[in-house]
Amino acid sequence: MTELKNDRFLRALRREATDTTPIWVMRQAGRYLPEYRATRERAGSFMGLAQNPEYACEVTLQPLERFELDAAILFSDILTIPDAMGLGLSFAQGEGPQFAHPVRTAADIAKLAVPDMDGELRYVMDALRLIRRELHGRVPLIGFSGSPWTLACYMVEGQGSKDFATLKAMCWNEPKLAHQLLDTLAQAVAHYLIAQAAAGAQALMIFDTWGGLLGPASFREFSLRYMARIVDALKADPQARELPIVLFSKGAGQHLAEMADTGCAALGVDWTMDISAARLAVAGKVALQGNLDPAVMRANPDVIRREARAVLDSYGNHPGHVFNLGHGITPEVDPAHVKVLVDEVHDYGRTLRTR
Amino acid sequence: MTELKNDRFLRALRREATDTTPIWVMRQAGRYLPEYRATRERAGSFMGLAQNPEYACEVTLQPLERFELDAAILFSDILTIPDAMGLGLSFAQGEGPQFAHPVRTAADIAKLAVPDMDGELRYVMDALRLIRRELHGRVPLIGFSGSPWTLACYMVEGQGSKDFATLKAMCWNEPKLAHQLLDTLAQAVAHYLIAQAAAGAQALMIFDTWGGLLGPASFREFSLRYMARIVDALKADPQARELPIVLFSKGAGQHLAEMADTGCAALGVDWTMDISAARLAVAGKVALQGNLDPAVMRANPDVIRREARAVLDSYGNHPGHVFNLGHGITPEVDPAHVKVLVDEVHDYGRTLRTR
Repeated sequence: MTELKNDRFLRALRREATDTTPIWVMRQAGRYLPEYRATRERAGSFMGLAQNPEYACEVTLQPLERFELDAAILFSDILTIPDAMGLGLSFAQGEGPQFAHPVRTAADIAKLAVPDMDGELRYVMDALRLIRRELHGRVPLIGFSGSPWTLACYMVEGQGSKDFATLKAMCWNEPKLAHQLLDTLAQAVAHYLIAQAAAGAQALMIFDTWGGLLGPASFREFSLRYMARIVDALKADPQARELPIVLFSKGAGQHLAEMADTGCAALGVDWTMDISAARLAVAGKVALQGNLDPAVMRANPDVIRREARAVLDSYGNHPGHVFNLGHGITPEVDPAHVKVLVDEVHDYGRTLRTR
Repeated sequence: MTELKNDRFLRALRREATDTTPIWVMRQAGRYLPEYRATRERAGSFMGLAQNPEYACEVTLQPLERFELDAAILFSDILTIPDAMGLGLSFAQGEGPQFAHPVRTAADIAKLAVPDMDGELRYVMDALRLIRRELHGRVPLIGFSGSPWTLACYMVEGQGSKDFATLKAMCWNEPKLAHQLLDTLAQAVAHYLIAQAAAGAQALMIFDTWGGLLGPASFREFSLRYMARIVDALKADPQARELPIVLFSKGAGQHLAEMADTGCAALGVDWTMDISAARLAVAGKVALQGNLDPAVMRANPDVIRREARAVLDSYGNHPGHVFNLGHGITPEVDPAHVKVLVDEVHDYGRTLRTR
């Protein structure tokens, strides 16, 4: 394998010293980029884009051509596993994800099997191998998955929802069934991330987009428990154990201390809490990734610079900070604003280290 | 005025002893009730219902006929003020609110004036007077408004949004303009709630539905500051000062201590934190209202009872708890489940007090 030319991101995840603060942006390969929209157009559909390794590689690399980002992230979707389980994922234009065959009954759940990583999900591994080759060691490559809870939310509801009350009702009315579903999903996610490590991913992230919809006891029982199980499985794999794992539960700032105890390397932090408070909460156990309000990217460049510095100052001159937005970048953002952000984080990150 | 026959709710807001825990339910007059849907049908539209005092009174009282609720809440919408300011509020079938004339420019904001409480908003006061009369002192009547921040979210966006980034961008790019808008709205809300007190409301609640979308510094600057200003204005009014004020910022659990310092009587708590933690955070300064996950109402009766007891146990045998859901009840809920909840809260609330 080619030697890594920029290892800031991996060093920060290990809480080692870096020359400046590394930055990448959730959904950095996305609709705010005209070149992404052009490739998406050629691919015909979102899934046509995600399932074609050449297209996936192309859009993964696009933001790196424009901005001095410190990591690439596989272009894919958090719902590839349920799609590979036969639920039939699609995205109507301008709409969220939809499953043709939602999972509702005991029979539906009993039928679910861990997909074949060299079969239904081979396109993901092919994309990772191709991206890794095309990166030539410029920056590390992040692989990812949705969390079991978040996958289950969509699988049971069949689509997006404000409250995912269908799955919640299952958790309360038929907890054994819900746990059976989450257990199958945790196994699938573990296999999936282990296969991603083998295919060339250099860090792994689990997106628990809807963990924050749960009350504290339910979060522990239905979300955190299964993410912890995945971390354990990755730690038991000789290859995957070398990769730093990042957990991100949106809206779950109060659970950071418990999440840090899973053995993951880092936690994502959304923008609704000060990252200084998050740093105190995790007490040096993990690195942190975040946490600029994504809406700041809609403001003017001076505001973006000021707010980026505020996040950097809040974390302070300590190791273990990966700069990111607190959630994905949105389609309306001017790409020039991303350059402003990336350059300011690197410039100010250097200044911060001289204090 | 008729003497109040059930003052549990008001006593709990004053943190006085009660025989059991009072309960009301956000959106208790709403689409989950067939009799509500029938009245709504007759009224022709949501605004036709809200703006007709007889209809508003009718639906306000409907849930009290079915359940032993300890408070009535005016049937209305959080967006009556911007509608009265001329923005043209409507609700398309099955959709959220929409404004015909969103507010975007300095000129739009300069044109906004505090509506006439005996003019454009007279229907609200007429409804309160009528409901108060028809209640015959059975339970206290709650008046309410949206918070300035939440009103501004919809006024600037023109409709619902995941992130209300248009208003956020205004706050960052043109903070003076945003403050001018919020200042006008705070004046309007204060006048509105004072008029509601004069018309017969016995407690006042401010719904800050979107405060939790803000980072901590922005929450203080753009949401909390204006709610505090309204509390001050109410405290300066000889009639309104007697009414307990409840503030509810959804998703803002980490700010409870600061919110308690405004001089309000109580805070709403959503379901994403333990109410025991909320009680510690506010250190006896205010009462708390909450905080069952609204999705529990979709589970079976045994689960509803168990989860209700868990909330009551979490608050413990202390004064100052008003039971509620952590957010509004949803249309799919079986009304029989609300009876299960209300009866369990009263029964178990009594048991709790004998410990």
